[in-house]
Amino acid sequence: MTAVTLQALSGLPEIGPGDDLAQLIGETLQQNDLGPQTKDILVVAQKIVSKAENRLADLASVTPGPHARALAATTGKDARLVELILSQSSEVIRTARNVLIVRHRLGYVMANAGIDRSNVPGAEGEELVLLLPADPEGSARTLRARLMERFGVDLAVVISDSFGRPWRVGTLNVALAAAGLPALHDRRGQTDRQGRVLEVTQVAVADAVAAAAGLVMGEGAEGTPVVLLRGFECDAPLRDATSLIRPVNEDLFR
Amino acid sequence: MTAVTLQALSGLPEIGPGDDLAQLIGETLQQNDLGPQTKDILVVAQKIVSKAENRLADLASVTPGPHARALAATTGKDARLVELILSQSSEVIRTARNVLIVRHRLGYVMANAGIDRSNVPGAEGEELVLLLPADPEGSARTLRARLMERFGVDLAVVISDSFGRPWRVGTLNVALAAAGLPALHDRRGQTDRQGRVLEVTQVAVADAVAAAAGLVMGEGAEGTPVVLLRGFECDAPLRDATSLIRPVNEDLFR
Repeated sequence: MTAVTLQALSGLPEIGPGDDLAQLIGETLQQNDLGPQTKDILVVAQKIVSKAENRLADLASVTPGPHARALAATTGKDARLVELILSQSSEVIRTARNVLIVRHRLGYVMANAGIDRSNVPGAEGEELVLLLPADPEGSARTLRARLMERFGVDLAVVISDSFGRPWRVGTLNVALAAAGLPALHDRRGQTDRQGRVLEVTQVAVADAVAAAAGLVMGEGAEGTPVVLLRGFECDAPLRDATSLIRPVNEDLFR
Repeated sequence: MTAVTLQALSGLPEIGPGDDLAQLIGETLQQNDLGPQTKDILVVAQKIVSKAENRLADLASVTPGPHARALAATTGKDARLVELILSQSSEVIRTARNVLIVRHRLGYVMANAGIDRSNVPGAEGEELVLLLPADPEGSARTLRARLMERFGVDLAVVISDSFGRPWRVGTLNVALAAAGLPALHDRRGQTDRQGRVLEVTQVAVADAVAAAAGLVMGEGAEGTPVVLLRGFECDAPLRDATSLIRPVNEDLFR
């Protein structure tokens, strides 16, 4: 029987700019008596990766241009925030009241270019928001390498963020980045029990990992931004989470 | 510390029309020494619910009309299958080569109205496909009631199916139906650690449950279509999975 366990790590300190996230996660794993095992997956919320990497921006220092002001009028959003969203985006996908869906420069189609206003304390007069990591895959690879070095086991790292969905209500955690696992499991050519070729041929493994971690990660006051997922087995070739981004030329919903 | 475990049930027999799914799942739980506990969630693949409910259709008996034939030419799909897809749908959302995305009459926006060709054995000359359950929420409620009666504990049932996503590659399991849990957790008005109102205010709990179960459920020859999820806690009000369907008038991507 296959069993997977999901364990939220308690006791991670509040993360701030310049913090050594790999060091802090390593210590917290040990404090939780969770020395990682081979094939463990650590799911880390984007928010703490961005904070550690000082991906903060101050709305008070942003001057919105005409495009941002027009979109702010359409969406009802702060024009300075819209300016910042546009600066992170390659394309505006849809707008509506309270809705601004863009293609992030890294390829993700998401609301507000993933810019987050919550949980960011700032100084007097500052209005800090949090951008995505500059290179999420690089962040995931570094975290993985550091934790593998510390613990001497082969493990994987997923950086997760919550995304909306066009036809479904509520957000779901997905994988912004993945190091050390098959983020996409390509099963094309495999057969079912009747020997018929499988209809579901590509499985979004890292997104399922991120969504699962969301069950114990929580948001808000009780947030625990690191989750250890143990027991998942998939021997497909390793692929990072860029494999989960649908290429623009296959996008039917631009 | 919060921990969730996911356990695929081994030994469930191949399900066919008329099988008593609640009885068979109950027996399999006992054979796996997994007498369910309060708050356990059973995630059941749509495929076996549909099979038990005899939601089979025979392509050999379908005559495609002009709309189906036109869409078959666009998509490259079997015109009889397209006819069947249209019969289950309220709206065609997008078409492309090998792609037919519709709004199912039950509201789900999904490929092929959820009709599945794999894993369905038929008699000579038959070309069987499998439709969604006629009333997935009803199926989930019945399964839940039967299993609660058998085991005398409060548990939840999710019926899952794999969906594609417009901007992400690979499929992810989502909740077609949910009984006994808050399928959508509405957190509007709650605050984060700085006292700021949360930006992520509605969480698609049942979709996360379904996606998590997908990690151990598998597809194809090794498929185990029932997963027991234990340890998830969320004291929000119960809501079924119709709460996860975005209303047509809020759809920005028709």
